[in-house]
Amino acid sequence: MTMPKKELGYSPGLDGIIAGETAICKIDIEREDMFYRSYSIKEIAEEATWEEVAYLLLYEHIPDKRELAVFKKTIGEQRDLPGPLVDFLKKIPFGTPCMDIMRTAASALSHFDPLANDNSKEAMQEQATSLLSKLPVVISVWNAIRNGKTIPEPDPKASVAEDLLRMTTGKKNWPSGVRALEVSLILYAEHEFNASTFAARVIASTLSDLYSAVTGGVGAIKGPLHGGANERALELIRKFKDPDDAEKGVLKMLDRKEKIMGFGHRVLRGGDSRAHITKMWARKLAEEAGSDFFAISERIDQVMEREKGLFPNMDFYMATVYNLLGFPTDTFTPIFVTSRVTGWSANVIEQWSNNRLIRPRSLYNGPDPRPWPDQARGRRSRRLSWAKLSKSAASLSS
Amino acid sequence: MTMPKKELGYSPGLDGIIAGETAICKIDIEREDMFYRSYSIKEIAEEATWEEVAYLLLYEHIPDKRELAVFKKTIGEQRDLPGPLVDFLKKIPFGTPCMDIMRTAASALSHFDPLANDNSKEAMQEQATSLLSKLPVVISVWNAIRNGKTIPEPDPKASVAEDLLRMTTGKKNWPSGVRALEVSLILYAEHEFNASTFAARVIASTLSDLYSAVTGGVGAIKGPLHGGANERALELIRKFKDPDDAEKGVLKMLDRKEKIMGFGHRVLRGGDSRAHITKMWARKLAEEAGSDFFAISERIDQVMEREKGLFPNMDFYMATVYNLLGFPTDTFTPIFVTSRVTGWSANVIEQWSNNRLIRPRSLYNGPDPRPWPDQARGRRSRRLSWAKLSKSAASLSS
Repeated sequence: MTMPKKELGYSPGLDGIIAGETAICKIDIEREDMFYRSYSIKEIAEEATWEEVAYLLLYEHIPDKRELAVFKKTIGEQRDLPGPLVDFLKKIPFGTPCMDIMRTAASALSHFDPLANDNSKEAMQEQATSLLSKLPVVISVWNAIRNGKTIPEPDPKASVAEDLLRMTTGKKNWPSGVRALEVSLILYAEHEFNASTFAARVIASTLSDLYSAVTGGVGAIKGPLHGGANERALELIRKFKDPDDAEKGVLKMLDRKEKIMGFGHRVLRGGDSRAHITKMWARKLAEEAGSDFFAISERIDQVMEREKGLFPNMDFYMATVYNLLGFPTDTFTPIFVTSRVTGWSANVIEQWSNNRLIRPRSLYNGPDPRPWPDQARGRRSRRLSWAKLSKSAASLSS
Repeated sequence: MTMPKKELGYSPGLDGIIAGETAICKIDIEREDMFYRSYSIKEIAEEATWEEVAYLLLYEHIPDKRELAVFKKTIGEQRDLPGPLVDFLKKIPFGTPCMDIMRTAASALSHFDPLANDNSKEAMQEQATSLLSKLPVVISVWNAIRNGKTIPEPDPKASVAEDLLRMTTGKKNWPSGVRALEVSLILYAEHEFNASTFAARVIASTLSDLYSAVTGGVGAIKGPLHGGANERALELIRKFKDPDDAEKGVLKMLDRKEKIMGFGHRVLRGGDSRAHITKMWARKLAEEAGSDFFAISERIDQVMEREKGLFPNMDFYMATVYNLLGFPTDTFTPIFVTSRVTGWSANVIEQWSNNRLIRPRSLYNGPDPRPWPDQARGRRSRRLSWAKLSKSAASLSS
């Protein structure tokens, strides 16, 4: 009851506690940099395509030309969703948040995957590739269904970003739009033991399968303290008609101690290099569209730094990017899912390669033990009592 | 790369690490006892019905007569599954493991719950009650569908255990069978920060919803190092034709260093009081049925204690209980789910009541940072470069 918390090394929220080892992502807080399998995210966001990054995370090396061609072909050709799943989506109430659909889809896709529950490394890599291919299509198909539109046809030759943009928003032949989306997928892919990846690892640590772990990841990333922040950031930005209005509004919110979504980070307290890259893309798309969304966002950012010393996390400018790309707000976190599924899967595969069950303890802070109260006794028949069974067993064996 | 692990307080698998506080479950290792909200599991397994225990976990007190009557009525009347979900189940390949169906159902039921995504305490209690009512029916309905049988009708007046037993196995009017099942639900309901409950809390700690957290819990409990152990234990027991055969077989397996499922526990290294209670019920049901399943189980237990000093965990004798009740093997872990959903839900509600994001760190053990290789450069157009965008932005603001 009154265990000394410090001696037990108790850190609420596991803040600063090392929970395991990984070779997938390294965060260098001092140099404001981050590495996917030893390559700087800054260089990756400049040099790589989304498919290369996904391959790097899942297969542990940068693909050569042939490997990349095969991988892209595999992704392109696996986009069709199972018919029974599409039929089911049509019967789900149209007001259901897209994130809830993603969670059900991540779980249900396993039923139609002949490799599901094959937990070899190779099979898990293929399961992950299938999810990487199909989860973006779930967003597009659900969005069409709930809007009463024709279900769009995937294009097996298109890149993931191209097809997701076209199938959801109808936009084609827009290189800067496609690249902005692609960079967002690259930046969102992996971030060591964030809550959703950690949830996925806890699940995998029981030697449960990849689909179970990914489904748990989807559930975790939904929360506004995690991936859900990009949708909340847009709701905030949308409240203001111009930068001055945003400044006044945010100051008022700070006065009232309201939470401003999209700022601060458990680990990256001094700022996030991914946010800088996202900001550039938000600016670029706003310029192209003649939109004041970027100017409003930037002003909120300035006010938060000046007033609270807080920096935007990646989600803050991502809200502007996705909004200018034309995605409905409740698909922002689902897009994050279509990217992070690679990080989750890489972590699940790594967990399996050197597993130890993740099972911490808790500190009990409830009342002292007490007897079952008399008034609640005798509600059920005493004839079947394990204590009596136990006594008769003892007399048998004596 | 070479951080000193001890200084960082790194404990693989978070073994012995306190990850949070709880008033729901207390484990007293020395006295081999366990408490749900301060009441000993030994007394609860003797005195209480399953519905009382579920109520205690969710509503934080033992129900009075009126509260219990209302709760039982609510559970009984909510058993019908949404039609679109049943239609979908009919189109899922019949070889799909029942646990995968439970995971999809836990997620999909949210779409038809008007309270889903209402994260008030009261709404979460009602969501949990709905799951408590419907998840057992999912087992029965799926089992009927895959066997080409008529889908059974729930009886709103029956207790959870009565209805689950009748709807899945067809067995009625069997007080000791019903009580054995009920006691198993009681014992399986909660166990502080076990892997599935911890996964549920990690998910809830992002302020994600109860359905997301429960779905993650289902994914975690599936693993053979957790709930999946009861199915694996039966596979083991089934291999042997009598106690002597079991003794020989287990000794051979130990020689070959094979893992014997159902023995040992991360926390309860000296034995588990729940296993003793389960053992009594396994004996009782075996005596009634004239089955040698119990004798075989007991011999394996004796060999394991003698040879390895290991004690059975709760799952070991549960395999015999569920088998003698007539449940198909792949519904054992799903039955565990229908019970533990109360513990997960109580933990989610508690996490929300005093939340802190659960986000640990990891120890990087991969290669040193290195540049993106030349042969992988130039695969995409350089026209859209965020570094260029960044430069043009700098010249704009200077």
